[in-house]
Amino acid sequence: MVTCSLGELAVRFGCELRGDPDVRVARVATLAGGSDALGFVASAAYRAALRQTRLGAVVLDARLAPECPVPALVHRNPHPTFARIAALLHPAAPLRAGIHPTAQVAPTARIDPSAEIGAFVVIGEGVQVGSRCFVGPHCVLAEGVQLAADVQLVARVTLGAQVTLGERCLVHPGAVIGADGFGNARDGERWVKVPQLGTVHVGADVEIGANTTIDRGALEDTVIGEGVRLDNQIQVGHNVVIGAHTAIAACTGIAGSAKIGARCMIGGGTGIGQVEIADDVVITGFGMVSATLHNPGVYSSVLPVEEVRTWRRIVGRLKRLDELASRVRKLERKENNDD
Amino acid sequence: MVTCSLGELAVRFGCELRGDPDVRVARVATLAGGSDALGFVASAAYRAALRQTRLGAVVLDARLAPECPVPALVHRNPHPTFARIAALLHPAAPLRAGIHPTAQVAPTARIDPSAEIGAFVVIGEGVQVGSRCFVGPHCVLAEGVQLAADVQLVARVTLGAQVTLGERCLVHPGAVIGADGFGNARDGERWVKVPQLGTVHVGADVEIGANTTIDRGALEDTVIGEGVRLDNQIQVGHNVVIGAHTAIAACTGIAGSAKIGARCMIGGGTGIGQVEIADDVVITGFGMVSATLHNPGVYSSVLPVEEVRTWRRIVGRLKRLDELASRVRKLERKENNDD
Amino acid sequence: MVTCSLGELAVRFGCELRGDPDVRVARVATLAGGSDALGFVASAAYRAALRQTRLGAVVLDARLAPECPVPALVHRNPHPTFARIAALLHPAAPLRAGIHPTAQVAPTARIDPSAEIGAFVVIGEGVQVGSRCFVGPHCVLAEGVQLAADVQLVARVTLGAQVTLGERCLVHPGAVIGADGFGNARDGERWVKVPQLGTVHVGADVEIGANTTIDRGALEDTVIGEGVRLDNQIQVGHNVVIGAHTAIAACTGIAGSAKIGARCMIGGGTGIGQVEIADDVVITGFGMVSATLHNPGVYSSVLPVEEVRTWRRIVGRLKRLDELASRVRKLERKENNDD
Repeated sequence: MVTCSLGELAVRFGCELRGDPDVRVARVATLAGGSDALGFVASAAYRAALRQTRLGAVVLDARLAPECPVPALVHRNPHPTFARIAALLHPAAPLRAGIHPTAQVAPTARIDPSAEIGAFVVIGEGVQVGSRCFVGPHCVLAEGVQLAADVQLVARVTLGAQVTLGERCLVHPGAVIGADGFGNARDGERWVKVPQLGTVHVGADVEIGANTTIDRGALEDTVIGEGVRLDNQIQVGHNVVIGAHTAIAACTGIAGSAKIGARCMIGGGTGIGQVEIADDVVITGFGMVSATLHNPGVYSSVLPVEEVRTWRRIVGRLKRLDELASRVRKLERKENNDD
Repeated sequence: MVTCSLGELAVRFGCELRGDPDVRVARVATLAGGSDALGFVASAAYRAALRQTRLGAVVLDARLAPECPVPALVHRNPHPTFARIAALLHPAAPLRAGIHPTAQVAPTARIDPSAEIGAFVVIGEGVQVGSRCFVGPHCVLAEGVQLAADVQLVARVTLGAQVTLGERCLVHPGAVIGADGFGNARDGERWVKVPQLGTVHVGADVEIGANTTIDRGALEDTVIGEGVRLDNQIQVGHNVVIGAHTAIAACTGIAGSAKIGARCMIGGGTGIGQVEIADDVVITGFGMVSATLHNPGVYSSVLPVEEVRTWRRIVGRLKRLDELASRVRKLERKENNDD
Repeated sequence: MVTCSLGELAVRFGCELRGDPDVRVARVATLAGGSDALGFVASAAYRAALRQTRLGAVVLDARLAPECPVPALVHRNPHPTFARIAALLHPAAPLRAGIHPTAQVAPTARIDPSAEIGAFVVIGEGVQVGSRCFVGPHCVLAEGVQLAADVQLVARVTLGAQVTLGERCLVHPGAVIGADGFGNARDGERWVKVPQLGTVHVGADVEIGANTTIDRGALEDTVIGEGVRLDNQIQVGHNVVIGAHTAIAACTGIAGSAKIGARCMIGGGTGIGQVEIADDVVITGFGMVSATLHNPGVYSSVLPVEEVRTWRRIVGRLKRLDELASRVRKLERKENNDD
């Protein structure tokens, strides 16, 4: 078990400490946690819970610090500071360098000796696995895949031919990166498959969620920028480009050839057509983006549920809006004639 | 092949038998099935088909019984009664207790000798597998996972560290339970990963569909109540709590920290934000729940498709509703002035 | 590397060649590609890029041919022609017939000797694998599965008991075909599982995307017609029937017992309830089909995002449409009284 003194934490993470530097914490917890744990508050909404806390220490900003009944680590930006302390107190299991005896590794693959390759992994010809990579059980890396240093594939990740992942990428179980895009040419009533000859390039520090799928490009490549965050069950079509540090929540579908800017935040369940989205765009959850968004801003098309009879009446009205508008026009004409 | 007499079935499942108790059935079928099969009717909508049936017997309620031309097993609640008879007539293949020679089981894992562990299964340190569990091929159970008695993991199920499943849970292929939640803290333009330190607890008698994902909690745990039914491709975010006996249809996405009550029925493709939903709420398919629902009831926000030109005109009107409303207001003012 | 002369390609694919028949191409590329590559144009929107191209040759129709600065393969239908040439120039890796030593094949399974069975594949009792099939690593074929000739399961595909795939089907990683449908009968507050006793039949020439799920039927079977195209992360409920040559884009959810016609095109993120859809229906992306569509045509219910404050005002107006309509009615009454 790792424990740290508040003094060490304050120095290491650039916090102002208000309290005893020799107090030690062993874990992170919510505000309801015990005296061996450290928590955080980032919003005044938790003020009441803060006043009651018995934590060993709390990370918070200067504004809330006066209300903290226990030692405080004061930082302008408490949430990422807390995240970094949590990672320090709860380190991942150390790598066990080497290749599991059940793994099937092609003769021309190059596996860095510091990497860990798990049980039942299949690694194709010409694959390169960098330093300190973790390739968990049941992963399949097709020919020519390249993993930069410190990539982690938790388990059961499938990477298609020639896919590249940048340093420190983290990919969760069930993700499929580099399956064929949906390329079909119509010939009479039949579909002819269009070979998908591009691949997928993923930048450094990208996290990809469970059962997310990212298709390979048709002729050119699909590109995921540095620092991108993709939640679970996201679909990224062929030739999509996602800019650096964009975060996308679960169940979002992105049509082929869409271009999404940098630093966007896209809520869950969003549908994105074959459009462009500028940098710094925010889409609230369940949005439908069917036309290009040229400017930063917050966009929405969510329709919150109503009690079903009310909702049906609204939909009925909506579908007769044309009629309502023409009734208004008729009234206006009369009014004008009367004047 | 299992066969049962109608007399046996009537006694075992508490039905009133109208017909020959010695008739035997060997399978279940639709109303179009043959004389060795048993079917059911739960709705008067199938009255015409019922009158034509040549089944060996039909499970139905007293209201429809007079119209049944073949032996009838009369029960107040025909559908679950039929389901139970179907399970009796079509039993699952018996377990083959033991550990497949290809499975990789950590030395500290405890596998009940009555359990079946399939090919290429990976079982981590400290895992506990209860009596009569079935762990199908290609499952991965990370360290500390606990399966209560009679759990069935069909194939290729991934369970993250410390995940617990209650008795008789049934999990379908591709499900990922206990991947990291989507926890990110913004620091300038970059995202800092927030370690996901909770796990997932699943109650007894829960069924989880193919390729469904349930994330582990951030600090506390994600909790799925007893008897819950989750269809395929559902996403359950970190720290979600789902109450007992709630059923959720496919493709529903549930944002982190949402709390869903007991006995809810949630239609397919629904999006649920970080909100609370009371007990006994019904959401029709494709709903968007972006605010807390305090009361039981049926809720909807589905917008049914229209012919595309009609739809575009409706959307145009919708987006100019403000203008229409101000025209109405103008007319009203004039009207008032005229009075 | 395969190379072809334009003369060969013209003859083989029925094109009119405008240019030197001895020019050879080795690959396909976009219009920005080099002189050893062949590209295509199917729309006048790319006219400017066409005029600048330095490709070795371009496949296009007679209308655009005069603007092509390099040799042209003229065909009435350039896209499928290009697709076929691409497949010729970029052939799949040849099969390595035989069963990988790690694969677990049940004694009663019949594997054609020309088929390739990959690492860690699990094949159940009574399975039949046809000529020249490719069963990639980590696939699981439960008992009684039948693969016709030339089926390709890329990797990590799970097929439930008795599932059949027609000739030349192509299935991508993570797909689960034949998991239990979502069949539950309510008994008080509890759900009783309804055994799912049907299976899934997939016609010839079907492509199924990554992480797509197709449930087995309850009593009868789920049926996917010949030539169907299913993109990634599609959910197909139990007893669904999809007609021949229908194409469905990613993230679409189809409720149990829905019947979809032939030659339909269904955009991504569409929700389809338990309804029927006629042949030749087109649904634009993010549509919600909650009632039967009897006639061919193009249907939509997409609501494009707006800037969030504008959107909230629109939703507010929408939810007060009843009130607006009654105000208009009041004005009309007055107007009529005034007349």
